[in-house]
Amino acid sequence: MRNTARWATTIGLTAAAVCAPLAGAASAAPDGAPPALYAPSALVLTMGHGESATTVAPERAVTLTCAPGPSGTHPAATAACGELAEVNGDLRALTMDEGVFCTHQYDPVVVTVAGVWQGQRISYERTFANECVMNAHGSGVLTF
Amino acid sequence: MRNTARWATTIGLTAAAVCAPLAGAASAAPDGAPPALYAPSALVLTMGHGESATTVAPERAVTLTCAPGPSGTHPAATAACGELAEVNGDLRALTMDEGVFCTHQYDPVVVTVAGVWQGQRISYERTFANECVMNAHGSGVLTF
Repeated sequence: MRNTARWATTIGLTAAAVCAPLAGAASAAPDGAPPALYAPSALVLTMGHGESATTVAPERAVTLTCAPGPSGTHPAATAACGELAEVNGDLRALTMDEGVFCTHQYDPVVVTVAGVWQGQRISYERTFANECVMNAHGSGVLTF
Repeated sequence: MRNTARWATTIGLTAAAVCAPLAGAASAAPDGAPPALYAPSALVLTMGHGESATTVAPERAVTLTCAPGPSGTHPAATAACGELAEVNGDLRALTMDEGVFCTHQYDPVVVTVAGVWQGQRISYERTFANECVMNAHGSGVLTF
């Protein structure tokens, strides 16, 4: 019986040690909110015609959540999350698809992505020469 | 017949003048995306323990869309959109509910709201002395 009691104590303490961080995270959420057991990824993407986000009003703006699964008002959330994962949230690292032809017309569009990516605050801005060039970068994240 | 034709022309031109701005907005959306016939409101809200968002990693982050209707990962999107509408997106204008008692313990939490509110870019940050004080501001927008 003494051995059994010791084992029970050991198992109990182990369970407490393993579960405490999870329980802590869960209890940090307010009543009714789902517990956040993953690093949050919640973003707003905007698009507007012009050179700089500081002077251009956003014509379109969508939300994108990538954890625990893709969601948001972004029309291609799954593809967007996949592409953002490849560049770690930094849309300046997206490369232009090969084989796409765009004119050299200068009619700039500025895209921003801001919010939280895998638990870290991010804020990126990128200006493309025209909408064709923008659309040629990736196949999901900028199609909103 | 000539009068009828003149009326038809008038009605046609009037319809074109009224509908053109809407059609323009609709055609600006990419294939498959819903047309944006309203000023976008797409936000990310974050919350973390500490004094300033520049040094505090977000513990929780949610998305909130308020147009055309409330949605997002915010657990109380409808209430949140209503409260944000009252302060025009600026959470620094939220006032503390009367009759709520909080200790004076200093354990600051910082809340941010950023993205697009009714077509305009916004970025606000507010630090509360402790979580009780934060929760006493409004009944919806900060409960995430």
